[in-house]
Amino acid sequence: MKISDLDTPVVLIDLDRMERNLTRMQRKAERFGVVLRPHIKTHKIPELAKRQLEKGAVGITASKISEAQVMADAGIREIFIANQIVSPQKVGRLVELAGRVRLSVGVDSTEGARLLSEAFSSVGRTIDYLIEIDTGLNRCGVPPGEPALALFREIHRLPGIRFRGIFTHAGQVYGALSLEEVREVSRQESRVMTETARLFADLDATPGVVSVGSTPTMWVWEGFGEGITEIRPGNYIFNDATQVALGVAGVEDCALTVMATVISCPGPHRAVIDAGSKVLGLDRGAHGKGLLKGFGRLLGGNAILERLSEEHGILRLSPGDDLRIGDRVRILPNHACTVMNLMDRAYGLMGEEVVEEFTIAARGKVQ
Amino acid sequence: MKISDLDTPVVLIDLDRMERNLTRMQRKAERFGVVLRPHIKTHKIPELAKRQLEKGAVGITASKISEAQVMADAGIREIFIANQIVSPQKVGRLVELAGRVRLSVGVDSTEGARLLSEAFSSVGRTIDYLIEIDTGLNRCGVPPGEPALALFREIHRLPGIRFRGIFTHAGQVYGALSLEEVREVSRQESRVMTETARLFADLDATPGVVSVGSTPTMWVWEGFGEGITEIRPGNYIFNDATQVALGVAGVEDCALTVMATVISCPGPHRAVIDAGSKVLGLDRGAHGKGLLKGFGRLLGGNAILERLSEEHGILRLSPGDDLRIGDRVRILPNHACTVMNLMDRAYGLMGEEVVEEFTIAARGKVQ
Repeated sequence: MKISDLDTPVVLIDLDRMERNLTRMQRKAERFGVVLRPHIKTHKIPELAKRQLEKGAVGITASKISEAQVMADAGIREIFIANQIVSPQKVGRLVELAGRVRLSVGVDSTEGARLLSEAFSSVGRTIDYLIEIDTGLNRCGVPPGEPALALFREIHRLPGIRFRGIFTHAGQVYGALSLEEVREVSRQESRVMTETARLFADLDATPGVVSVGSTPTMWVWEGFGEGITEIRPGNYIFNDATQVALGVAGVEDCALTVMATVISCPGPHRAVIDAGSKVLGLDRGAHGKGLLKGFGRLLGGNAILERLSEEHGILRLSPGDDLRIGDRVRILPNHACTVMNLMDRAYGLMGEEVVEEFTIAARGKVQ
Repeated sequence: MKISDLDTPVVLIDLDRMERNLTRMQRKAERFGVVLRPHIKTHKIPELAKRQLEKGAVGITASKISEAQVMADAGIREIFIANQIVSPQKVGRLVELAGRVRLSVGVDSTEGARLLSEAFSSVGRTIDYLIEIDTGLNRCGVPPGEPALALFREIHRLPGIRFRGIFTHAGQVYGALSLEEVREVSRQESRVMTETARLFADLDATPGVVSVGSTPTMWVWEGFGEGITEIRPGNYIFNDATQVALGVAGVEDCALTVMATVISCPGPHRAVIDAGSKVLGLDRGAHGKGLLKGFGRLLGGNAILERLSEEHGILRLSPGDDLRIGDRVRILPNHACTVMNLMDRAYGLMGEEVVEEFTIAARGKVQ
């Protein structure tokens, strides 16, 4: 099948570029003597998680139990849920999942740790946990240093849970305004985690895992912070317009595009495509301040994707842009993870040939 | 089942409020002697489309063929696709669909009309079309008045297609900053359409259908423009924080909420919930300029939903807000249609009782 046989809007994955991205990050991990545990939130496809494992990843990272369940159902056996699980319903599901995969989970509160402890000890089992450290995102996680140790002291004797290490996600990097700022966040992320790991070691509780990661901080990473043992990027498999805007990837490194059709040309400066926010999302950079121009980047043209309705993308044309009704365009989305969460299927390309159809099995898994 | 039995994040529909919204809009249509053809993009659930029909709606509106197919598969027989269909693949699917439901479709270009004409006349069939008029949204549609007539003159003799009327969507109303501005857009939408309909009548081509609609312009509508025959609101079934911000609905008129759990309380001014942009979307008002505060409205508290990551909502707490890990909160989303497109299921409530589970069968239908 050729690209031209596909109906639009549709998600296309350039398999060569994807392969190159996977190899590059795997080699980086190996070069600096750490393991790679990619976050599957970007692709949400078990077959792609397996390719990451085949390349050398030690396991996967997921955000939600339901995502992890999809991956476990597909045969993946080593999963870290980088999130806080604090409700009784969820802990029950976690116990079930821990019965069939090697599972670890994040913790940032005594309440959360107690709930895990009760559920797992009551069935005579133990789950590994990693304490989440807030290295500047100001989302979840305890502050580094003494507060992290204080939480550890409160929970480390609880039955049914076992301290495995510490982790962070320096998502504030998406607010960086230059490549130098990205590097600074990456250095800081690793430095803070290394220092905190040392404090744990002083307590005779050396973390087995010291885990960092976001795609921007990992693309620029040069082994900063000598105590890091694991990296957890997700977006690197595809990259997207956000990574390009931050300067950590080129357009030629981006594996995921959306193909759309021009459905209306109501005036000389406007063309409307059949992909809107239901396909591209409204992301302007997760925590960003405006490096991105428009709601996605039109490839092969200067037109700006200026507005999105749910089903329409409105392009502002520049002189020389010649778009006609029925033309097909390719959009590099601002945020690849969002696109994959919106769509049910994606198509793998070798050149102009469609060689693979993927079901995005873990999309919409929010519980 | 009780609400408390449900895992989070989860979409809840207050069935009494929904019923009241459906009845109110149906009565408004009847009072002003027009028909109601609700847009199903808001709920995406065939069972709810059927309730709209039972209440008196003449048919439904959809954006995409794939949405219409889901509704047709569920037995709905009268569908208007308020969009431009311009690609050969889609026209083939349209012919198939027209074989099993009473179908009409939007047109705003000669190219689009020709494609429909060729496909339908080649199988000896005819499809009804409505010309889309741009009443100020600057998206698709021909300008009102002479340009609309010019398009009509070019296409009305084509075989296989039959002129049925004109339609518009005054989505620019979502940029209104006051209820008075909403009323002004509503008056203008109807006035422009009535005037354009009169020009068609002068050509002996009186439109059978003169169709307007968006929820804000319809909630304030008082039969403006005497030539209107049909209204097509969608959001009115649920309402949302955007409708509340525009002043066309109260919080007590909103039927859809998201229930989430507090998973982390890392500081005195911050609580983190398990619903992020994968549930709530990033909408700040479709074409809006900032009437909305935050990414959704916390019910029963003053906290502001200040930031969303994909899986996390970050609440900024005010003095007096007392949220603890494990607490459940209810969020009135900014844009109900987006939430329904992100989720696979929704639950119908009578008070605290969960009485119905809905599969959102037409979510993600973008082709």
